[in-house]
Amino acid sequence: MGPKTSYADLVIIGAGPAGLMAAAWASRLRLKARILDDKADRVQNGRADGLHVRTMEILDSFGLAISIEQEAYKLREICAWNPDPEDENRIRRTQRVLSKEEELGRYHQLGIHQGFIEQRFISLLKKEGCVQVERCIETKSLELDQAIATDPHAYPVALRLRRGDAANKGSSPDAFADSMQEETIKSKYLLGTDGAHSWTRRQLGLKMTGDRTEKHFGVIDIIPITDFPDARISCSIHSAKDGSVMTFPREGRLVRFYVQFAETSNGEEFDKSKITPDMIVQTASRILSPYKLEYDYCDWWSVYTVGQQYASNFDVDNRVFLAGDAVHTHSPTMGAGMNVSMQDTYNLVWKIGQVVNGIAQPRILNTYNGERQKVAAELMEMDRRMSQFYCEGPSEDAHNYRKFREEFRTFLSGVSVKYGPNILVPPTLEKEDGDLTSHVQNGFLKEGKQRPKLWSKQSLARNMIVGQRIPSHLVMNIAEANTVHVHSMLKSDGRWRVLLLAGDISQPAQMARLKGVSDYLASPSSFIHTYTPESQKIDSIIEVLTIHATPRDKVEFSDLPEILHPFDPKLGHDYWKCFSNNNRGEEGEFSDAYEEWGVDKTRGCVAVVRPDQHVSYLCELDEIENVGKYFSQILLPQRQDN
Amino acid sequence: MGPKTSYADLVIIGAGPAGLMAAAWASRLRLKARILDDKADRVQNGRADGLHVRTMEILDSFGLAISIEQEAYKLREICAWNPDPEDENRIRRTQRVLSKEEELGRYHQLGIHQGFIEQRFISLLKKEGCVQVERCIETKSLELDQAIATDPHAYPVALRLRRGDAANKGSSPDAFADSMQEETIKSKYLLGTDGAHSWTRRQLGLKMTGDRTEKHFGVIDIIPITDFPDARISCSIHSAKDGSVMTFPREGRLVRFYVQFAETSNGEEFDKSKITPDMIVQTASRILSPYKLEYDYCDWWSVYTVGQQYASNFDVDNRVFLAGDAVHTHSPTMGAGMNVSMQDTYNLVWKIGQVVNGIAQPRILNTYNGERQKVAAELMEMDRRMSQFYCEGPSEDAHNYRKFREEFRTFLSGVSVKYGPNILVPPTLEKEDGDLTSHVQNGFLKEGKQRPKLWSKQSLARNMIVGQRIPSHLVMNIAEANTVHVHSMLKSDGRWRVLLLAGDISQPAQMARLKGVSDYLASPSSFIHTYTPESQKIDSIIEVLTIHATPRDKVEFSDLPEILHPFDPKLGHDYWKCFSNNNRGEEGEFSDAYEEWGVDKTRGCVAVVRPDQHVSYLCELDEIENVGKYFSQILLPQRQDN
Repeated sequence: MGPKTSYADLVIIGAGPAGLMAAAWASRLRLKARILDDKADRVQNGRADGLHVRTMEILDSFGLAISIEQEAYKLREICAWNPDPEDENRIRRTQRVLSKEEELGRYHQLGIHQGFIEQRFISLLKKEGCVQVERCIETKSLELDQAIATDPHAYPVALRLRRGDAANKGSSPDAFADSMQEETIKSKYLLGTDGAHSWTRRQLGLKMTGDRTEKHFGVIDIIPITDFPDARISCSIHSAKDGSVMTFPREGRLVRFYVQFAETSNGEEFDKSKITPDMIVQTASRILSPYKLEYDYCDWWSVYTVGQQYASNFDVDNRVFLAGDAVHTHSPTMGAGMNVSMQDTYNLVWKIGQVVNGIAQPRILNTYNGERQKVAAELMEMDRRMSQFYCEGPSEDAHNYRKFREEFRTFLSGVSVKYGPNILVPPTLEKEDGDLTSHVQNGFLKEGKQRPKLWSKQSLARNMIVGQRIPSHLVMNIAEANTVHVHSMLKSDGRWRVLLLAGDISQPAQMARLKGVSDYLASPSSFIHTYTPESQKIDSIIEVLTIHATPRDKVEFSDLPEILHPFDPKLGHDYWKCFSNNNRGEEGEFSDAYEEWGVDKTRGCVAVVRPDQHVSYLCELDEIENVGKYFSQILLPQRQDN
Repeated sequence: MGPKTSYADLVIIGAGPAGLMAAAWASRLRLKARILDDKADRVQNGRADGLHVRTMEILDSFGLAISIEQEAYKLREICAWNPDPEDENRIRRTQRVLSKEEELGRYHQLGIHQGFIEQRFISLLKKEGCVQVERCIETKSLELDQAIATDPHAYPVALRLRRGDAANKGSSPDAFADSMQEETIKSKYLLGTDGAHSWTRRQLGLKMTGDRTEKHFGVIDIIPITDFPDARISCSIHSAKDGSVMTFPREGRLVRFYVQFAETSNGEEFDKSKITPDMIVQTASRILSPYKLEYDYCDWWSVYTVGQQYASNFDVDNRVFLAGDAVHTHSPTMGAGMNVSMQDTYNLVWKIGQVVNGIAQPRILNTYNGERQKVAAELMEMDRRMSQFYCEGPSEDAHNYRKFREEFRTFLSGVSVKYGPNILVPPTLEKEDGDLTSHVQNGFLKEGKQRPKLWSKQSLARNMIVGQRIPSHLVMNIAEANTVHVHSMLKSDGRWRVLLLAGDISQPAQMARLKGVSDYLASPSSFIHTYTPESQKIDSIIEVLTIHATPRDKVEFSDLPEILHPFDPKLGHDYWKCFSNNNRGEEGEFSDAYEEWGVDKTRGCVAVVRPDQHVSYLCELDEIENVGKYFSQILLPQRQDN
């Protein structure tokens, strides 16, 4: 019997956090997807262990944040320790710094090992029943037929693999060989999330560029037995002569220690095989003097050499993509790697899904490389700076850690990532006669062309930055009188959202504007009809959400046009689409979303939000037809008469 | 083969919410327990559907609150609707009332069907692997050997049962009969949570007393198709002539309607069998006029007659206990029944566990009857009042629902329940010459006896009422710099807690007092040693938790005496026992627990908290030895030299 051939929309190689995030999207979008891993099980301990605000928001959009937050260590303070000027053989605490990550979003920075997060994804996939991780898969060859890569219906990727039965892996080699089966998967798209030594990347012949230093660190997860008073606080510790330690407390009683070893020089060999857990802890204990550090239980340990490398291209022909460690590697001390990696595939796979499902035009796939390469480049730069900080001794930065942290705090949180301008994110311009030079320079506008077809007015929502993820604030569901976070309406289900910030509709002129918008939306030629197949519910591709700024008890639910809370003959009205801003009335006080977003409470505006929660377009309510123009550049009409 | 005989510490009959709560305790306390149910599966829909603040706190103490809160409807507002004075055939909204239950604790009032809650318990039991629900059990006879009931080691309960294989229940009668097995369980204790028609209660010959009215209601869970604007708000609706409706929105799109039918009189028969779901909804639609109510999907429905009945005794010989609907039944409109029922067994089973495990003296079991009968009596009274409200037409109460609600809001939340005085909760007295008359009158003190051996000083913590559950506020873990709720330290694991509210220990005199307390605790004769078996960890029976009122950065973790953060040679220090109050410093602001509890920030105090989170004893730090006296009345010494 020859090897069997099967077909898939998407094949994901590597079931680490980046691959599992991709699989979660594929599951939500009901893609015919496969996720393959060469190992017999998920990571059990160690490896990555830091989660930042934006990653938690994304995990929450899949319903995974709460269980992780409950188990994880919450980082609220960081302490800097430096040599005591009175006796430089002793360290002393020189600064307490609040992490303040919760100011940037709804979450703290968290510490929990990668395997726990992987398990949440695996359980999600199991529950949704669409995509399951296939293990003990040996990939043999990868071919991309570039001749048919432009045909959206083609399967240009051919992946040959051999599968082993995980249960047999421990038995005799013969039995194992017998259980192997060959298979060829023909796929529309392929994603390599197979780590720093990516097999996929090597098949594609993509090169990593960058540096490798002669700085070496030990990393170890232990239950510390110590008299160090900040054992459960994340610390940046610089000794006078013995190097530096960075600590990061974790779930349960574990604490991670990053411990600097002596630097090699001139290519001198650093023999990692001679390092033992005891050596790492003894070195840390010297640095922590006068405090003692010992351990009875070690959960995981490793040795690494600082370096920053990344790939010049994250895709080939918009058919084969790479993400995570496969395209950017750096040192682990910032706890950023797993976050950026998951964010890579969170950015990518909804786009693949919309193309596969015939909702969007294939050219939206062009945006992945640009959007994520920029982030990787910034990550490299941050990591260089951070590695220098840990290796240069008790510097001014080490003493004023608060100031140093400010340089990277926002980037690290992930909320400042800004996409575009590109096909998904039109540029922001304020005036018809605005200066377009910068848009010409960055290639968005062709030289000589006066202005783009479409641009956002950033001034309509000063703090809802076009290209960034929309910040979440509390608003009130007007049918239920409950406060809810805006992010809770933006679940990762592949839908676009149009937020109608309707302003003060107790004013007749403004209510008339909202009625105008609603009449347009209800008309057969509006974008919600044009891009939604007739067989599907009207909110299945683009969901319209209304947030008005009138006190809730001044407007009845039934005063709002029906298109804003669509009626279903079997289910009644949709009570979960209309909200009011905080109005400091009978309802009590909560955050004022209009004020936080910088939106005028009388006139409001319209915001288009991508399926990944990034703001892509802003306009006036009166300009609602422009939203149709926006979608016409990226979506595919679904009805014959359009 | 004759029927087999097995032995158990506790048998629970009935696996509804009350029985499952009992089983959760039994699991936590590692009792040899059985939970039996005659049905083949848990409740799938309908029945009870309201959860109140105290119940949520209890569920949280078992780790079950978050998953329930995520799925449930949160009740934040209640609207009163009454006849329109201009046209009394129409109703109009007359008042919006905030539920404000979240002011009394950390949770809202929630709406979710009983089966969802049961499933959370069943999953918990499965995960903990100690007690599992046995289904399709037919109980045959129950005998209590009163002659040996006073011997704590005896098994005075004999329960004879026949078990069916649930899987066979659907097959032929013969196969089913064959699969039946007889068994006799000899048990130390038995708990009947088998509902209003309790088999256990009938075996014991206990009678229910109370009234049954001639007021009849239909109750139905539907997805409403309606133009009524408050479809997703809980409403109290009185029409002029057609009766009243009370609505309660629920998880998903469901809404429950309680619909009043015409009253019967003079014993006239009310034929429930003639009622249909359509009739219930049509009656509701008439009451809601001018709004229309229809439905396509009905999840569950029932008909009930208002009445209040309860048993005069909740136990026999402290060996067989009854709880929940088995001892108190009333109308469901308040959504109180499931809550009071779960709180019954939450009160009881830790006591049984401590007696079975040899930790506590059997006489603590005496407290169950007194503590919970009082609650049942109050519930009956509230229900009479509420039923009258719904049946009497658009009264003054119906118009001023806010005022009416104030009468029962706190009781309904469950946080005002106050136990004692009894053996577990010594009385509160302020002065040595205090007036003891009331304590003589309520039977706690014998006539002529001057004062009890032990009494609490309520003034030390004015808002931490002795006998009530301790209110939860945020404090800061001083080792991790994280804010945590006090309730999160008081998990339901069977431990007593002694809260050392250490006051301002930056003042040397106060630090000296804390050192004095610590020296006593560390001495071999202190209560933590006396009542803890030598083979167990020092915090396994009584956990000491410290909350000081000094700014966190003024006192190092290592400045606190070691007994307050016990050291383990393999695990290091215990970093999760020492906290600081909010001090509005660098750490930012959060709730001020000392101020909320009414505790002096300089001197502090000591609070003893029962395993069910109720405050049982308050004294000065200097009086720490009195805590030993308190425990000497209820616990059993565990070491030979004591």
